[in-house]
Amino acid sequence: MNYTQRQKNLMHALSEKKLDAIMVTHRANILYLCGFSGSAGVLVARGAGWVLYTDGRYTEQARQQAQGVRVTISKGSPLVAAGAHLAKAAPGAAVAIEADHLSVAARRVLAGSLSKRSRIREVTGLVERLRMVKEPEEIKRIGAAVRAGAALLDRALATIAPGVAETTVAAEIEYAARRAGVQGMSFDTIVAAGPRSALPHGLASGQPIPRQGFVVLDFGVILADYCSDMTRTVHVGHPKPAMRAAYQAVLEAQLAAISAVRAGAQAGNVDRAARQSLRRTKLARFFTHSTGHGVGLEIHEPPRLGRGGTEVLQAGMVITVEPGVYIPGEGGVRIEDMLLVTERGADVLTPAPKEMILL
Amino acid sequence: MNYTQRQKNLMHALSEKKLDAIMVTHRANILYLCGFSGSAGVLVARGAGWVLYTDGRYTEQARQQAQGVRVTISKGSPLVAAGAHLAKAAPGAAVAIEADHLSVAARRVLAGSLSKRSRIREVTGLVERLRMVKEPEEIKRIGAAVRAGAALLDRALATIAPGVAETTVAAEIEYAARRAGVQGMSFDTIVAAGPRSALPHGLASGQPIPRQGFVVLDFGVILADYCSDMTRTVHVGHPKPAMRAAYQAVLEAQLAAISAVRAGAQAGNVDRAARQSLRRTKLARFFTHSTGHGVGLEIHEPPRLGRGGTEVLQAGMVITVEPGVYIPGEGGVRIEDMLLVTERGADVLTPAPKEMILL
Repeated sequence: MNYTQRQKNLMHALSEKKLDAIMVTHRANILYLCGFSGSAGVLVARGAGWVLYTDGRYTEQARQQAQGVRVTISKGSPLVAAGAHLAKAAPGAAVAIEADHLSVAARRVLAGSLSKRSRIREVTGLVERLRMVKEPEEIKRIGAAVRAGAALLDRALATIAPGVAETTVAAEIEYAARRAGVQGMSFDTIVAAGPRSALPHGLASGQPIPRQGFVVLDFGVILADYCSDMTRTVHVGHPKPAMRAAYQAVLEAQLAAISAVRAGAQAGNVDRAARQSLRRTKLARFFTHSTGHGVGLEIHEPPRLGRGGTEVLQAGMVITVEPGVYIPGEGGVRIEDMLLVTERGADVLTPAPKEMILL
Repeated sequence: MNYTQRQKNLMHALSEKKLDAIMVTHRANILYLCGFSGSAGVLVARGAGWVLYTDGRYTEQARQQAQGVRVTISKGSPLVAAGAHLAKAAPGAAVAIEADHLSVAARRVLAGSLSKRSRIREVTGLVERLRMVKEPEEIKRIGAAVRAGAALLDRALATIAPGVAETTVAAEIEYAARRAGVQGMSFDTIVAAGPRSALPHGLASGQPIPRQGFVVLDFGVILADYCSDMTRTVHVGHPKPAMRAAYQAVLEAQLAAISAVRAGAQAGNVDRAARQSLRRTKLARFFTHSTGHGVGLEIHEPPRLGRGGTEVLQAGMVITVEPGVYIPGEGGVRIEDMLLVTERGADVLTPAPKEMILL
């Protein structure tokens, strides 16, 4: 991981915005910028030197992990310690805070420890934007996470049968993941069967899988800090023609969206490709979420691939493409791959078939 | 669950603080107040009627779950919709926000949608305080979660052996949990072996268990929305006398702290009992965290049982008691139970032995 370059890029972004310093409080951003993965820390970045503040639980870990920063262990709140440091070292500075990742209460605490002369500047997505285009090592790690995730599908398919609880399917997926040595799941596993498949966020429940209907499987792992994310929808029993048609429509929409991905395309164009494809059927109104999102250290990162999104895709971004339709009371279908954006199109990273699987 | 009483209690708390309304944005607080468990929602509570704002992903779920509130599905941000509603319905109101659970960026968005005449009041822990004393049904559910959690220990013990990866032990714990039908783990499973046991937050890693040393196991489940939390420390191989003494010291400190628990005691007294007990050895300086915390819908809730804590314990609170010592480079020990505070003392809920287990 090229921490030197990342730190240089952040300093450049700060100077462009005429900021003297930034207090990075979001865990994934701290991890990205200096390699420290603890759950409590404040990274103060400024030209005169970077300092990571954390607490006594992380003394060892911070010293082992943190790159290119000085580590300070504070007895009380790391945020207060960081504020007090800046109050002394740079009393009149324009200090950026991560407005999406600092609570109103924490901001108040911070304001009390900073110098009265400092000017707090709220920024959003500053570090996240630096994270959008992945380094070669990151792409390698994401690829490994995606493959480890996709390898779990077979276990899920072997478990799914009428009468088996959704949570049992999740159990088998997660067990296989852990046995394969992953750090954890990248989000709560979705196993949504029958009418529950019409819930876009149907976390595995105690409900048994019915004799007939879709089962949406949406899961991912964290491997070497990087996330994977995939969805496949399988059908138990003989599918009604309308359900077969819904599956086919979502698959075509997903392929259409993938075709729209390339460096230089706007994120909204990818979303539009999926919607236009679905509009050829009567299912477009059942596609109730956006088409995709970036993935990396976090399961949801910029860019967002939604309606009207103006973000321009760049080579090296890693995104999901995951249209779905959800017919209340009937069922739902979602198909999701991870893609690496390239100059000429996209590499589909997820190595799993997308034809409708009947169980 | 007595939602009517909870809603009444909140209205009482608001009127005591001369607040006209509160915008509840913290998921666990929304779940507590009306039963809705979705990950995106804003609950506006005021005398003229309560409204839950959420988005299209949760239409079905909100209508099924939410009690005593009107449900409104917003196309855009539920926060903006909630603000616009208040701007119209109660333009001059004193509106509380949950300062610990609203980002600086979200507060700005909210301020833009509220009426210019509304007065935003930052509150912290208002709903959390109502949640501290549990209802009988909550105590029942917590008890079930604690038993489901404790039942996993045997699986862990059967797996631990020199050479087995920490993640494999975590895999077995989590698999058994899922097979038992829990919703999920209440936090990332800690399996920290050998020198890693000196890390208070040693998440299971790829490291194999050594031939000799402690293994700290800290894990919990979520069952019917309620969390469990327990820690046991076992020893692989023949323990050095110093390690045996450390175990005994922590066990005595834990028992001393449990003896200090009763309705009317201050939280800080429980913490002090643990520290005083450890001070009889030379290990007190290695006890680097607080003694315990409340548990319920969240794994960490008020009250906090730390140094100088003035919160007065009440019958019906559910807390952990979990002293530990962490000797850098050597190893660590932590022993943690969950307790129900009673008028005369405490019921230890965790049904697992605490004598040192040698594997």
